[in-house]
Amino acid sequence: MHIEILNTGTELLLGTTQNTHGSWIGQELLKLGLRVQRQITVPDGEAVRDAVKESVERADVLIVTGGLGPTSDDLTREATAEAMGIDLIEDEHAMRLVVKYFKKLDRYMAESNKKQALIPCGAEVLPNPNGTAPGVYVPPRLGKGSPCAVFLLPGPPRELKPMYQAEVPHRLKALVELTEDHEVVEMKFTGVGESDFHEVLDRSLSAISDLEVGYCARPSEVDLRLIGSSSAVASARVLVDEAYPDKLISDDGRSLEKVVVDLLVAKHWTLTTAESCTGGAIASRITDVAGASEVFTHGFVTYANEAKREVMGVSESLLNTFGAVSEEVAKSMAQGALKTSNSDIAVSVTGIAGPCGGSDGKPVGTVWLGIAVKGKPSYALKSFYPKDRSTFKLMVSQRALDLVRLELLSS
Amino acid sequence: MHIEILNTGTELLLGTTQNTHGSWIGQELLKLGLRVQRQITVPDGEAVRDAVKESVERADVLIVTGGLGPTSDDLTREATAEAMGIDLIEDEHAMRLVVKYFKKLDRYMAESNKKQALIPCGAEVLPNPNGTAPGVYVPPRLGKGSPCAVFLLPGPPRELKPMYQAEVPHRLKALVELTEDHEVVEMKFTGVGESDFHEVLDRSLSAISDLEVGYCARPSEVDLRLIGSSSAVASARVLVDEAYPDKLISDDGRSLEKVVVDLLVAKHWTLTTAESCTGGAIASRITDVAGASEVFTHGFVTYANEAKREVMGVSESLLNTFGAVSEEVAKSMAQGALKTSNSDIAVSVTGIAGPCGGSDGKPVGTVWLGIAVKGKPSYALKSFYPKDRSTFKLMVSQRALDLVRLELLSS
Repeated sequence: MHIEILNTGTELLLGTTQNTHGSWIGQELLKLGLRVQRQITVPDGEAVRDAVKESVERADVLIVTGGLGPTSDDLTREATAEAMGIDLIEDEHAMRLVVKYFKKLDRYMAESNKKQALIPCGAEVLPNPNGTAPGVYVPPRLGKGSPCAVFLLPGPPRELKPMYQAEVPHRLKALVELTEDHEVVEMKFTGVGESDFHEVLDRSLSAISDLEVGYCARPSEVDLRLIGSSSAVASARVLVDEAYPDKLISDDGRSLEKVVVDLLVAKHWTLTTAESCTGGAIASRITDVAGASEVFTHGFVTYANEAKREVMGVSESLLNTFGAVSEEVAKSMAQGALKTSNSDIAVSVTGIAGPCGGSDGKPVGTVWLGIAVKGKPSYALKSFYPKDRSTFKLMVSQRALDLVRLELLSS
Repeated sequence: MHIEILNTGTELLLGTTQNTHGSWIGQELLKLGLRVQRQITVPDGEAVRDAVKESVERADVLIVTGGLGPTSDDLTREATAEAMGIDLIEDEHAMRLVVKYFKKLDRYMAESNKKQALIPCGAEVLPNPNGTAPGVYVPPRLGKGSPCAVFLLPGPPRELKPMYQAEVPHRLKALVELTEDHEVVEMKFTGVGESDFHEVLDRSLSAISDLEVGYCARPSEVDLRLIGSSSAVASARVLVDEAYPDKLISDDGRSLEKVVVDLLVAKHWTLTTAESCTGGAIASRITDVAGASEVFTHGFVTYANEAKREVMGVSESLLNTFGAVSEEVAKSMAQGALKTSNSDIAVSVTGIAGPCGGSDGKPVGTVWLGIAVKGKPSYALKSFYPKDRSTFKLMVSQRALDLVRLELLSS
C-alpha cells in the first residue's frame, strides 16, 4: 500500500516550527505494519492544490495535515475537492460539530468559522473534540472515482493526534488486508545505549527470520521496536530480556513516569521530590500522569543554598564542607524531603546544569542523586551529563525516576 | 526563486528519526530572505530518482540531503546524474578528499567507499571535513542544460551543517539578485487568540503592500510573523502594537519564561512558585532559562491539601470552607510561598487538571491563580482550560508566567 503524508503550513518551511507530524504518523503507521512512501511539506495556499493532485495520482492513501482553519490561506478542503473532482458542500453534521465546539467553550463563533463545515460531497466528517476544525475522510472511488483514500486532519498536534487515533487506524485496516500474524512490540529501556544493543544483540537478532528490528535513541532512553510474526517477536524477546533484565522500563508504551506512578500505587507508597538542578522537571513529569495525586503529595524545588537549608533542613556545615553538589547534601536533601512530607520514598538531585557554575572538580554536568526510604539507610549516586541545559534536565530526571523505579522493585 | 528540499532516508519516514534538516535549512535560507517552496522526504533507494527528476523540473534550486554514503541504497549521486542527464564520473579531487579523510582517522578504507568519489561530470566537489562523503554542486545549465541548480549534501547533521554554511550561501547569493531591503520579525503574544488577530487586524494588514503575515497558534500563545520591506514591517508593527499593547511577550524570539527571568534580573527581584495542578511545570519552565538561579530560589509543589497546610501555611478552615480550588486558597498559597521563601513575588496555582476530580461547581479545567508581592495586597484570578492534562498544565503555566510578567511591568 503506497501511503503519502502531506503536511501543509508555511511555518514548517520557514523552519520556525519543527514538523513533527511526519515522524509521528510514520510511527503510528508502523504499528500497523504500514510504511510511508513519501512525505511532502508545502506552504499554505495554492501550493496545496498541486501537491494533493500529484499525491492522489501516486498513492493509495494520502494523509494531509493542516489547512483546515477558518482563514483565507486554509485551502486544504478546497484543494482536495478540486484535485479529486468532488464538489464542496456545507455539511450539516460538520456545522453542528463546529457550533457545538464554540458553545462548549462559551465563545463567539465568527462568520469565517462556517467555512470549516465545508466537506467534499459524500465524504465522512471526523469529529474534533479539541478544536474547531472537523476532519474529513474521502473514501476511495468517491465522486469521479480516484482510487486514493484521503484523510484531512487538523494541524495542531493536540487536535491531530486524538483524531488520528480515533478515526484513522480502523479505516486503514478496512482498506488493506493486514497480515494476520503481525505483531509489534515497543520496549523502552534506560541505562543502556543504542550501541550496546548493536554490539550485544544485532547478530543474534538478525538470525531470526521474519523479524524487523528498529531503534529510537533519545536522551537516556532507547526504544526498541520488534516487528514480525508472533513467533519471531517471541524469540527476539527472550534474547532481549536475557540481555537487559533490569533496564526495561515497559513493553506496553508506558513512560517511565507512568511506570513509577503505577508501582507507587501498587505498593500504596507516596513519593516526594527535592530538586535543585532539575528545577521541578521531575515533579512535572510525575504529575503528567493522571492519578499522580494519589501517590505524590509534595515536591520541593530548592534552587538556592538558603532554600536547601531552610526547607530541606540541610545543615550549613554540610553545605560549607562539601558544597551543594555533593553526596552528603544529596542524601540530606532526600532525608529532609522524606521527613517534611512524611512520604515513603524521596528522591533528590543537586547538580550543575550550566552553562556556568562549573569548576575543575565539579564540571558542568555533574550531578548527585539521593534516595531516602522510610526505615532504610539513604544513599546517593553521582552521574555526569555534560549536555545542553534542557538535555541535562531530561537526563537527570530520567535517572532520578529510574532510581525510584529500581528502589520500588527491590523494596 | 523556487527552492525545494529533498531529504532522503528510510528512517525519516519510519518516524524513528526526526527530520530536522528541513526546518534547519528553512531557517538558514530565511536569513538570506529566501523561502522553501516544497520539502519532500523519500526512502533510500529508487524513490530518490523520481523525486529528483520531479524537483529539478519544478525548481530553480534543489537541495538534497542524505544518500551520499557507500552502501547500495545510497543512490543520490546516481539519481541526480540520471535525472539531469549528466554522466557520473570518478572525480580525482573527490577521490583525494575521501582517501585523505580515512588517512586522517587512520581507518581502513573499504572498496565501497570509492563510490563516494563519483560526481556528475562538470559538477563541483564540496569538501566534507567531518565525514567520508564529499558534497556536490551542480550549477544551472550544466550538461543537457537543466536550469535548476542542485546541491547534494550529506545526511548526518554534524556533516551537513558545516558543509551547508561553508558552501551553500555564497553560491545562492551568486544565483539570485537578493533583495537588500528585507526584514523578518517574529512576535509572540499571549492572552489573545489567532481569530482575534484575524478579526481585528487582517483587513488593515492586508492593505500594506509588500508585506507577508503568518501566524502560528500554540496553546495560549500566538506567534505572528511579519516579512517584507523594512517600511512595510514598520507600518505593520504600529498597527499590531496599537491593537495589543500588553499582550506582546517578545519580538526577538525570547520565550515567556526567558522574558520573566530577564524582567526579574532587571528589577533585582526573586520569584517563588507554589504549584498544585501544574505539579512543577512552572518551576521547570523558569529553570529552563540559563541563569534562573539568580532570581529563582525556591519552588513548592503542594499537590495534597496536607502539603498546602504544612508547607504553605494554608489554614484548615480556608480549605474546609472554600475548598482547595478557590480564590482564598490561591491567595493564601501565594502569601505562604512569599513568606517562606522571603521572595519579592510569588505565584500560585490550584486547579483541577483532570481527567477526574471535577464537580458541577468546579468542573475539570477550573483553576485559580494567585499573585503575592511584598508590601502589596495579594489577589487571585480564575481561569478555565477544559483540555487534556498536558495542554492544561501548559496553558496554566503560561497564564501564571504572564501574570508574573504583567505584575513585573506594572510594579
